[in-house]
This record gives sequence, C-alpha cells and structure tokens, in this order.
Amino acid sequence: MKTLACMAAAATLLALASPASAQFAKPEDAIKYRQSAMFVMGTHFGRIGAMANGKAPYDAKVAETSAAVVADMSKLPWAGFVAGTETGGNTKAKPEIWTEQAKFKENNEKLMAQTPKLAAAAKTGDLAALKIAFSATAEACKACHDDFRNK
Amino acid sequence: MKTLACMAAAATLLALASPASAQFAKPEDAIKYRQSAMFVMGTHFGRIGAMANGKAPYDAKVAETSAAVVADMSKLPWAGFVAGTETGGNTKAKPEIWTEQAKFKENNEKLMAQTPKLAAAAKTGDLAALKIAFSATAEACKACHDDFRNK
Repeated sequence: MKTLACMAAAATLLALASPASAQFAKPEDAIKYRQSAMFVMGTHFGRIGAMANGKAPYDAKVAETSAAVVADMSKLPWAGFVAGTETGGNTKAKPEIWTEQAKFKENNEKLMAQTPKLAAAAKTGDLAALKIAFSATAEACKACHDDFRNK
Repeated sequence: MKTLACMAAAATLLALASPASAQFAKPEDAIKYRQSAMFVMGTHFGRIGAMANGKAPYDAKVAETSAAVVADMSKLPWAGFVAGTETGGNTKAKPEIWTEQAKFKENNEKLMAQTPKLAAAAKTGDLAALKIAFSATAEACKACHDDFRNK
C-alpha cells in the first residue's frame, strides 16, 4: 500500500509539475497555442494602450471589456512553453525560457498579478487610473519580452 | 437639438452594430485574431472532448479550467469577421458569413448560450453531465462550421 500511495503521490506531483506536456498533441500545437493566446491578449491590450496614449478616444466600456480579456488571457500562454518547443513555428522564444525557468515563471506571475489590477482600473471608468494600470502592465510585458523574447 | 440627438443615437447604433471594424488596424489582424481565438477555444474544447470520448482520463479540474476558457473565448472570434476580411490569411471563412449575417450571428449566439452550460456541467465534477454538455456544444460548433466554414 505504501508503494501504491507513493506512486499515486508521485503521479499527482508529476501531473502538477508538467500538466502542459500532455496537453498538446504536437510541439507545433503548443507554439501555436501560446502565440494565439498572446495575439488575442495583445490585441486587447493594444486597444487599451491606444486609449491610454491618446491615440484613440477613451471608451470606458471598450476598456473594461478589453481589460477583462487581457486578465483572462494572461493566464494561458505559459502552458504552451513546454519542453520540445524551443524552436519551430516562427517562435521568438529565447532559450532562456527553458534554462531560467524560475525567472521566466516569476515574470509570468508578475503579469498575472498585474492584469486583475488593470481590469479593476478599467472598471472604475477613470482614464487616469487606467493609464497608471496600463503603464504598470506594459512594464510587466516588456520586462519579460526583453529577457525571453527575440526581436 | 433633435438633429444632434438623432446623430448621436445613430452613432451609438453604428458603434454597436460594427464596433469591430475600427478595432483592427489591418484586415490580416482581424483574421489572425479570430483564428487565434478559435485555436485557443478549440484546444481547450478538444481536451474536454478527449475526456468525454474516453480518449483521456477524466480530470475534473482540467475539465473545469478548460470549460471556463471555452466559455470566455466563445465571445471573441465574431468581432474578427469584419467586412473586408472575406479572404486572406488562409481563412476558411465562407462568403455566407457576410451574405447571411443574421444566420451567422444566430449561430454565434447559440454557441455563446451553450458554453456557460458546459462550464457549469464541468464544475459539477460529474462526467455524465460533462458528456451531455460537450455533445450539445460540439453540435453548436458543427452547425456553424457546416454552413460557414470551408473544409
């Protein structure tokens, strides 16, 4: 029984540690998945940016909807950075994603901690609050892109 | 004042009717956006399908997380089907999307009405309930793909 319990615990840990590797049939799917999630997130984040930077008229409803999508999407791309997807599919991923996993994960978490604040700021309907939250979120994006994404 | 009020009302209606056309800088962006949203949705829906069809072990937590993503994502792709994006970017979109907009919209809404039920079924932790909701959701996908997507 002890062996069985131990094996079950190990299997659970394994599943928690690398749930993603089993989630994609092919490496290309994982790459396409993370790129797709990033593109949807980027599209909505870009809309907020246009308003924050005065390049588009401020529309509180669009800001709120877009920020909610950004907050949802910010949870997703990371599962796509599984082992075996370092190259392929026009990926801009730097090898450091896999050699500095703790740092990469920390960056992901910083973004995920920031996006709910962006969503909350967008909900207030206050453009000044949105600008501040946009800036902080953009910094979280940039910090990770600088270290982990090729130009 | 009447004219102004009328113009404002018309502008609001126009914004409601076609908020998307202003949301994408280029037609290719709109195509990539809807394809990206579909791919993320499809990835998570596929995971539920694998469980519903006995091709993957049932994992209530994965089902719940995936169904929540499906429900979120199911709201997004439609904004990408703007005028001027009938062709390009390997789109499989049929011209009927633009010539039968009411029917297309009805199909989109059927899916959006179904995915919260999928999410609710996944939350129960009951595989039988998940299978039923998966089936109904898959039918909503298929009905629209049959009429509006090329193979």
